[in-house]
Amino acid sequence: MPAHTIAQIAAALGAEAHGDTDLSVTGAAEPQSAGPDDLALAMDPKYADGLAAGQARAALLWPGADWQALGLKAAITVGRARMALSGLTRMLDAGPDLADGVHPTAIVGEGAKIGDGAAIGPFVVIGRDARIGARARIDSHASVGAGTVIGDDALLHAGVRIGAQVRIGDRFIAQPGAVVGADGFSYVTPEKSRAEAARETMAGENDAEAQAWVRIHSLGAVVLGDDIEIGANACIDAGTIRPTTIGSGTKIDNQVHVAHNCTVGRDCLFAAQVGIAGSVTIGDNVIFGGKVGVVDNIFVGNGVVAGGGTNILSNVPEGRVVMGYPAVKMDTHVEMYKALRRLPRLATEVAALKNSVSKPDVTD
Amino acid sequence: MPAHTIAQIAAALGAEAHGDTDLSVTGAAEPQSAGPDDLALAMDPKYADGLAAGQARAALLWPGADWQALGLKAAITVGRARMALSGLTRMLDAGPDLADGVHPTAIVGEGAKIGDGAAIGPFVVIGRDARIGARARIDSHASVGAGTVIGDDALLHAGVRIGAQVRIGDRFIAQPGAVVGADGFSYVTPEKSRAEAARETMAGENDAEAQAWVRIHSLGAVVLGDDIEIGANACIDAGTIRPTTIGSGTKIDNQVHVAHNCTVGRDCLFAAQVGIAGSVTIGDNVIFGGKVGVVDNIFVGNGVVAGGGTNILSNVPEGRVVMGYPAVKMDTHVEMYKALRRLPRLATEVAALKNSVSKPDVTD
Amino acid sequence: MPAHTIAQIAAALGAEAHGDTDLSVTGAAEPQSAGPDDLALAMDPKYADGLAAGQARAALLWPGADWQALGLKAAITVGRARMALSGLTRMLDAGPDLADGVHPTAIVGEGAKIGDGAAIGPFVVIGRDARIGARARIDSHASVGAGTVIGDDALLHAGVRIGAQVRIGDRFIAQPGAVVGADGFSYVTPEKSRAEAARETMAGENDAEAQAWVRIHSLGAVVLGDDIEIGANACIDAGTIRPTTIGSGTKIDNQVHVAHNCTVGRDCLFAAQVGIAGSVTIGDNVIFGGKVGVVDNIFVGNGVVAGGGTNILSNVPEGRVVMGYPAVKMDTHVEMYKALRRLPRLATEVAALKNSVSKPDVTD
Repeated sequence: MPAHTIAQIAAALGAEAHGDTDLSVTGAAEPQSAGPDDLALAMDPKYADGLAAGQARAALLWPGADWQALGLKAAITVGRARMALSGLTRMLDAGPDLADGVHPTAIVGEGAKIGDGAAIGPFVVIGRDARIGARARIDSHASVGAGTVIGDDALLHAGVRIGAQVRIGDRFIAQPGAVVGADGFSYVTPEKSRAEAARETMAGENDAEAQAWVRIHSLGAVVLGDDIEIGANACIDAGTIRPTTIGSGTKIDNQVHVAHNCTVGRDCLFAAQVGIAGSVTIGDNVIFGGKVGVVDNIFVGNGVVAGGGTNILSNVPEGRVVMGYPAVKMDTHVEMYKALRRLPRLATEVAALKNSVSKPDVTD
Repeated sequence: MPAHTIAQIAAALGAEAHGDTDLSVTGAAEPQSAGPDDLALAMDPKYADGLAAGQARAALLWPGADWQALGLKAAITVGRARMALSGLTRMLDAGPDLADGVHPTAIVGEGAKIGDGAAIGPFVVIGRDARIGARARIDSHASVGAGTVIGDDALLHAGVRIGAQVRIGDRFIAQPGAVVGADGFSYVTPEKSRAEAARETMAGENDAEAQAWVRIHSLGAVVLGDDIEIGANACIDAGTIRPTTIGSGTKIDNQVHVAHNCTVGRDCLFAAQVGIAGSVTIGDNVIFGGKVGVVDNIFVGNGVVAGGGTNILSNVPEGRVVMGYPAVKMDTHVEMYKALRRLPRLATEVAALKNSVSKPDVTD
Repeated sequence: MPAHTIAQIAAALGAEAHGDTDLSVTGAAEPQSAGPDDLALAMDPKYADGLAAGQARAALLWPGADWQALGLKAAITVGRARMALSGLTRMLDAGPDLADGVHPTAIVGEGAKIGDGAAIGPFVVIGRDARIGARARIDSHASVGAGTVIGDDALLHAGVRIGAQVRIGDRFIAQPGAVVGADGFSYVTPEKSRAEAARETMAGENDAEAQAWVRIHSLGAVVLGDDIEIGANACIDAGTIRPTTIGSGTKIDNQVHVAHNCTVGRDCLFAAQVGIAGSVTIGDNVIFGGKVGVVDNIFVGNGVVAGGGTNILSNVPEGRVVMGYPAVKMDTHVEMYKALRRLPRLATEVAALKNSVSKPDVTD
């Protein structure tokens, strides 16, 4: 990492600098393992002992901290610790080691346009007529399909796969192995499928008759807004006729699956291994914990929060906080779960009651 | 997309064409967003208003629709809408933009054979003695291991990984990042492992003793039938001694995991994020919703249907429809779940009963 | 596979050889499908009929087996069958077909060092200043980031992605598509996020207010011990400031996710699709079945065993065996579940009791 002075870092964070603000640091570290050229991260008084144990000469500290008493030469004091962490890590993140321009091994298709200041890595393939925005960084082995448009300041890590005819806004980030625009998983049977029948009847058996699956191809591609991040090995499938769409500011973690024809709103946050089936509509500002599942063809309203492991099997209205399998309101879930924990005891109590109630009949 | 006339499309769908059947379309669209060169998809009367709002001159319509009253110049009327969608999207899907022949950057191993009419993309690696069937399309960065055989008309998207000694039938489709033939996850401990002990005792504690894991290598590869599709970033692991096998016609969605030594039947459908542990036997025509899990070394009979999120922890007989964690028959699940919803109230009722029953004791 | 004599195999397994120990085999097979050059695997008397049906001349047999009566020319008798399978499959596994040395298409960055006897495949990219140990085998399309260090005897399959500044010990195995060192999924909101609020209140509704996510970058990379295996398309994310760490001997299956800042101990075993959220501490010898989820910022003690599908939502002490959503002790889970199965009947009983209890009130 390049060196930064305490003054530069404080300015970038909009925070107050103290002491020898010309002092330079080349990295950040936890207080106890910080070396003399690291900025120690000690945004809470509980880290004071760690500072004493480490070798940092400068630290990020809580508001009002007595940096001199902590034996430091310089300090920056900040409010919300994680906001400061955001600014600091952004400054120190060098990103992938990519030379400017198009690497001689990369293949750029006929009619494709690469924006100014872009860095295209080894073995990258950019399809025919694709457009890549200014200052894009595309790491080795990534591929971008024909006719796809990606906005400015994109960062595609190694091995990212973007399909054909995809539209992506500015400041897109895709982690290694992310796949945008694979074909949707869409099959039809000539007659009603046994899956459709099972949903209708909710019976415990079905006729188990053989059925062959006929493929519906995906022509609709994907449209992503601005400021979207897609995690490692996550998949956003193409729509059938219209595109699968995701609104600006939405962040998607590793191994998430968003199926064909979904419409996802703005500023959502999906943790790892979330799976959203086909043709789901999700509002803005929705937060899904890890492993949340959503069944196909439903809607999830604005601002819904679902805890980790929740399986959403029916529509969820705006603002609801849900949990469980199937999903219910969080407080209902807690109440049901507490009752379930006590259920073995309840069964014993009912057995005792039956006994005591039936006895009088005998003795009467 | 290339232009097609209404007559050509109707012939391909085996459907009836009306009006100016020489009219050409170059794409398909939802009625309200269709341009003058799109075929509007309006297979239900509820889309009539959409047609009026859009600019389509031709549409796919429901049986008996009055296409002239809808202001169209031409129309095709169809029965089961999704079957028509299947035929239409197949016609219009151009597939990946790959030049015929072997791209100069691709590497074809010694003794490998590429079928007639195949298109092998940039940076593809085909292993020694592999055989690729006629008309295969293999997109950039895919790799095929030594000795592997893939049938005719395969479509491997970018970055697909096929291991060594794999046998695959005709018309195989693999989405980006799919992995067929990785090593199975198979470990043994010199003495009984704590996982085995926990299963036997079902106790809530174990001795937590250290154990080292000794690897069992995978020699058995994978055998896939005809007409199989594997989704993006899905994994089908190699068997230990005999191959992991999947029957013809089975369709597998994104991020599905099929472990070593599994035997999966014909015409199954596994939605995204399904996970099947080692040495499971699955019959024909089995349908798994998203995120279904199956524990190792069990069997699932023909025609079983499991709802999204189900965890199957024991054998499931033919024709059963299951749900829940652990899986039970669908109707049992519904009954149990309804009772659980009412459980907090039931607990209150039991408390009241205890009160009313105990009172007589006091007053007696 | 190269030929081995029965004597050689027995010596490698530390087992007893019988009969014509100079006989050569070139593969292993199940008894009924074994050819004359295969070693049949029949480590249990139940396979005796299979031996008769197949053509094997030599077999791996149970202790004390009468190999002559089974019609064999040679045999090896072994104790714990799966331990023998481990040794045998290791002998017969040729691994990926890679020529020694660096393939002419591979790119090795400035200052990078490749160990003696390494085989680096086509289209591999090794970053600036990376160090790869002796005898490493790195298959096609893999990439290793700048400054990363990988120990001796590594096996990276096709398309593996190792990020920058990662430290990996000896004998590392990574299956196709595995990603080590992608950026962690870490976001902050200027004010308290609605996810934090939901956890605190456990209420069923929230204000659904819009919030924008500010990124925290990952500077901490990943540190892996010796003898670690990572499955296909699995992801181990980089830490924020300090590294995400995994102890020696831990084995991780396909599509597992280990988030940023996690600390995982030695000799753990995580089955497919396990997901571990950020900043979790996991002890040594922990065993997770498939699809286990672990919520962020908790600890899981040494030797914990969690059954497939378990969602761990709070700390788990050492030695515990857990199951369920949320996770409870295995025996508690069994008891709760049995009670739940009987719950519909219990509800009927309570209704009957209410009737019988209320009747006296009427007749009094």
